[in-house]
Amino acid sequence: MHKFKETVFRKIVTELLDNDPFSMNMGIKIIDANEGYCKCSLKVKSDMLNGFGITHGGVIFSLADTTLAFTAATFGNKALVLEHSISFLRKSNAGSIITAEGTCLHIGKKTGTIRVDTYDSNQVLIATSKGTIFKTGQIN
Amino acid sequence: MHKFKETVFRKIVTELLDNDPFSMNMGIKIIDANEGYCKCSLKVKSDMLNGFGITHGGVIFSLADTTLAFTAATFGNKALVLEHSISFLRKSNAGSIITAEGTCLHIGKKTGTIRVDTYDSNQVLIATSKGTIFKTGQIN
Amino acid sequence: MHKFKETVFRKIVTELLDNDPFSMNMGIKIIDANEGYCKCSLKVKSDMLNGFGITHGGVIFSLADTTLAFTAATFGNKALVLEHSISFLRKSNAGSIITAEGTCLHIGKKTGTIRVDTYDSNQVLIATSKGTIFKTGQIN
Amino acid sequence: MHKFKETVFRKIVTELLDNDPFSMNMGIKIIDANEGYCKCSLKVKSDMLNGFGITHGGVIFSLADTTLAFTAATFGNKALVLEHSISFLRKSNAGSIITAEGTCLHIGKKTGTIRVDTYDSNQVLIATSKGTIFKTGQIN
Repeated sequence: MHKFKETVFRKIVTELLDNDPFSMNMGIKIIDANEGYCKCSLKVKSDMLNGFGITHGGVIFSLADTTLAFTAATFGNKALVLEHSISFLRKSNAGSIITAEGTCLHIGKKTGTIRVDTYDSNQVLIATSKGTIFKTGQIN
Repeated sequence: MHKFKETVFRKIVTELLDNDPFSMNMGIKIIDANEGYCKCSLKVKSDMLNGFGITHGGVIFSLADTTLAFTAATFGNKALVLEHSISFLRKSNAGSIITAEGTCLHIGKKTGTIRVDTYDSNQVLIATSKGTIFKTGQIN
Repeated sequence: MHKFKETVFRKIVTELLDNDPFSMNMGIKIIDANEGYCKCSLKVKSDMLNGFGITHGGVIFSLADTTLAFTAATFGNKALVLEHSISFLRKSNAGSIITAEGTCLHIGKKTGTIRVDTYDSNQVLIATSKGTIFKTGQIN
Repeated sequence: MHKFKETVFRKIVTELLDNDPFSMNMGIKIIDANEGYCKCSLKVKSDMLNGFGITHGGVIFSLADTTLAFTAATFGNKALVLEHSISFLRKSNAGSIITAEGTCLHIGKKTGTIRVDTYDSNQVLIATSKGTIFKTGQIN
């Protein structure tokens, strides 16, 4: 549905990523972007696991949170995440490449609601997120 | 209210932390623990910021998520976080030592609800979390 | 995708509804049901509005919450909602027939995660929910 | 901490309640109000129960949601609830008078975060909520 395009949307989120030290540090990569849409991925390293030997919730959330903010930013304004609720559905492991897909459900003048679904290497849904963003005055 | 004690509770969460690679990697430290209570901190480094130059939501969430799971684990069983909702209230910066305080609101036979409030170096509330945990069969 | 069927699933949720005084009182109706799926509707009456003259959040949540629990109950066990997070996206008015569609994202031995999307009479998304349920020992 | 006062705050929320048909219909009453604070109650009637014979989640949420919006409105602007996440901790029954206590955790220029804790007749915590509001241009 959303094909790879070297569009303005992809340019926006690539610049956001380049200026986001923690996302870079986590190895987050842009896969695709469109208006109200963003897809990012991350390779789970062995130091990203928790005490159960599975991906730490903070890693999945970090990918989802960056994706959530970037999805909102495709509308033009840099977006702050006001709140983000995540449900963890299935485990993933070291070596997995997990992918978060953000879709805008509603964008208003000042706020918006974004859904992010996160998948493992086999396209199995491992987490689902819902968040509220605030559009800052900073234009991308 | 919760004084530092070298109790069984503190021993439980210290062992959990020692076996949690991502939490160790993030520099999370145990401050205190009691039954249904856990307090952890983290020093925000420059590679933990986002594009606004403030602490990335994933960093705050990671601290809160570890604290949430550890708070639940003080009851004896290792706990999995089923869902975790976080609201970001105020920004924090590189160099801040942020502290998450988890309190159990309800613990049942299989599940529980935990609140986590996260503060900056000045004890200002920067985020609040609410999560549902599942008690695994693994005893600490 | 989910056609109307007088199946066991529809029988389960119809019986649940008949024994649920508040849902009956709100005028909730079953539209469809399947394994891991349930669709319910409600006609917004003038005494269901809030101070803005639009449908009160509690009305939309009530429909979504019943739908959430019923979606989980299609797997056989009566389900308790542990937590339910709802985002309100667009307003609806008196006279609207709003419809909530529940889909199971994950069902485990004891708990599950359900998504509910709620639409107005024109199939416009007005709210989205995400919740965690607990499977009780009571079989439908 | 928050004594009953016939202040401007109480006047604001009383007027909001008088103009809120669903809240009136549910029998919601104002107990107290202050800046960034509101306490409301509701008597659980037999037609407010669910299939388990306990208070329906929609009833508890409705009380909490009205309280959440009114807490935010004490700052002067009518507030819309953007999202509201509720955890159900313990059951309550017909005849119970349940009380929701809203506290503002952060109020900004356009948005705010409110916590609402809901108690049964015995001051036992039965639910906890966290929500994000949007300040409309309508002044109370």
